[in-house]
Amino acid sequence: MNLAMRLALRAKGRTFPNPLVGAIVVKSGRIISRGYHKKVGLPHAEVVCLTLAAERANGATLYVTLEPCSCFGRTPACTDMIISSRIKEVIVGMLDPNPRNNGKGIEILREHGIKVEVGFLEEKLRAINQPFIKYITKKLPYVTVKVGQSLDGKIASRSGDSHWVTSDKAREYAHHLRNEFDAIMVGVNTVIRDNPKLDAPKGALTKIIVDSHLSISLEALVLNTAPVVIATLSTSSAQETPNRRLLSQKARILEVKEKEGLVNLRDILKKLAREGVSNILVEGGGNLIGSLFDEDLVDRILFFISPKIIGGEKAISSVMGKGRRFVDQAYKLKDMKLKRIDSELLVEGYVHWYN
Amino acid sequence: MNLAMRLALRAKGRTFPNPLVGAIVVKSGRIISRGYHKKVGLPHAEVVCLTLAAERANGATLYVTLEPCSCFGRTPACTDMIISSRIKEVIVGMLDPNPRNNGKGIEILREHGIKVEVGFLEEKLRAINQPFIKYITKKLPYVTVKVGQSLDGKIASRSGDSHWVTSDKAREYAHHLRNEFDAIMVGVNTVIRDNPKLDAPKGALTKIIVDSHLSISLEALVLNTAPVVIATLSTSSAQETPNRRLLSQKARILEVKEKEGLVNLRDILKKLAREGVSNILVEGGGNLIGSLFDEDLVDRILFFISPKIIGGEKAISSVMGKGRRFVDQAYKLKDMKLKRIDSELLVEGYVHWYN
Repeated sequence: MNLAMRLALRAKGRTFPNPLVGAIVVKSGRIISRGYHKKVGLPHAEVVCLTLAAERANGATLYVTLEPCSCFGRTPACTDMIISSRIKEVIVGMLDPNPRNNGKGIEILREHGIKVEVGFLEEKLRAINQPFIKYITKKLPYVTVKVGQSLDGKIASRSGDSHWVTSDKAREYAHHLRNEFDAIMVGVNTVIRDNPKLDAPKGALTKIIVDSHLSISLEALVLNTAPVVIATLSTSSAQETPNRRLLSQKARILEVKEKEGLVNLRDILKKLAREGVSNILVEGGGNLIGSLFDEDLVDRILFFISPKIIGGEKAISSVMGKGRRFVDQAYKLKDMKLKRIDSELLVEGYVHWYN
Repeated sequence: MNLAMRLALRAKGRTFPNPLVGAIVVKSGRIISRGYHKKVGLPHAEVVCLTLAAERANGATLYVTLEPCSCFGRTPACTDMIISSRIKEVIVGMLDPNPRNNGKGIEILREHGIKVEVGFLEEKLRAINQPFIKYITKKLPYVTVKVGQSLDGKIASRSGDSHWVTSDKAREYAHHLRNEFDAIMVGVNTVIRDNPKLDAPKGALTKIIVDSHLSISLEALVLNTAPVVIATLSTSSAQETPNRRLLSQKARILEVKEKEGLVNLRDILKKLAREGVSNILVEGGGNLIGSLFDEDLVDRILFFISPKIIGGEKAISSVMGKGRRFVDQAYKLKDMKLKRIDSELLVEGYVHWYN
């Protein structure tokens, strides 16, 4: 199962909104074939390795990290192929959280006389598929917040300067992390202050700018490479902005509901989920991240902490918004992990965990 | 020298304003006696172990972590005793930073035909005696700032609630750390908000309240056990506070210069140094710590970071004050160390390093 999980991880960041899945066919203690799901629209892991195994699958055991699908979706049901391949036994890592399947795949296999065992490496498999589990059960994208702050929690000084809070190496590391997501999101203030390109090494990241009043400049570097989505108020003065027509040539304008004079963040996420966006990296600024926490929309955090003190009552904090009213209402991280990157510290943790 | 350093460390927190010093007398490869400086006014490490060695010191080697003193101070000069003990060779860890000695002790020993070698474990010895080095060379106390914050740098929520940002275990650990200092300092807002006792397990800590306008309550718990020093403006309305006379029965009122309407922090430290206070732990709040950074008065930091997010533009940040204007002017930590305490993280580092 460990090997199957490692196979699954090869496609990390490329399967959205599908899960990471790996599979192996084993017969008489020997591995006959391996497979993993490479990309949405391409064959499932089981199909890849059963195709490779061909008639050698007869009487063999299939190890698969996720319960095989039982419904015809973008590709035919995997249970059918397992049955017709005459596989004798299936060892499943975890159940499919998709309510359309969730146990049905196992049931069908058992009805066809195949021995099925379920529940191996479950915690780890759930961890690598948290975005998929949330997306399929909540119909919302999984939201990871990335912060690069000083030890005292500042992302910019009182003058608004943010160049650079973290080291070159930490920023490079963070840049590569973008590959694991299908979209990146920032608030318009970050665009105005830092003018980032928001590109990823692999390229095809959807860039989402949260900009209630369409105040982004037409010259912003982020607009140079598609796809860009600008989330703005549907009912606001944003509609009459002279820039609007010009902006809509460079980006897609996504109109969303209002909440307290600004865009409704939950509505943005709902609309993005409908379009298939399942795993978003939010890179700031403090207002957007604070508001996401206020709405309880953050699932995981990545805090790069630079060993420096910026200070200042008016400096910009990594998590602003309204904030929690009392300390015992604070969001507690599950499973905090630490990593040292150059002179900096990376703190990772889950705000929510999906089963 | 390692053994001598370990001996020196036995008196950690009890020698102020003196340094931590350990010494050993060795003859024919065998340890004859050991000694360390226990407390100001008590014999120096060399005297302790030479007294124990008595006539066996004749022809022996003395290992001592710090250059022996050459001047008659609270106790007689150690160089005299080394010479009269007929020690053959002296191995010195580091030079005495005290300008009254600083090489003179070595010179005197050499003039008397004693072989002297200097410079062993220097970095480590300097590290354990940073407070002494600063105190003796700058005539200011060494300032360590302790913070207990959320991952996003908050020490209290927007409502002012701070119970509790860090875990029981982390707070207990922090409580024991107080033993390493001779004074503890907080701003009056912390007294008003948290009403702490500011006691230490070992007891005799001087408690310093920074209170420009004497707004502390007579019922504050911190006033229950002496010694308490309240630093306040000499030229302000504080003088006429009705509480002043009653307060002065429970605490010593230290009048200091003004700076921008508040107490001048450098003046407080100067005055405390003159009274022999050499190693202060500052426990908050955000305003005091921010102002200490603004005045470049912080030497070392201890940040307990709890894996939680409080958020809020109006939450209370661990380091407020004015703050640095630009990020590249931020205070960079030297030699950052990490420790996990229960579910929390302790980040330690030097803001200044004294040679």
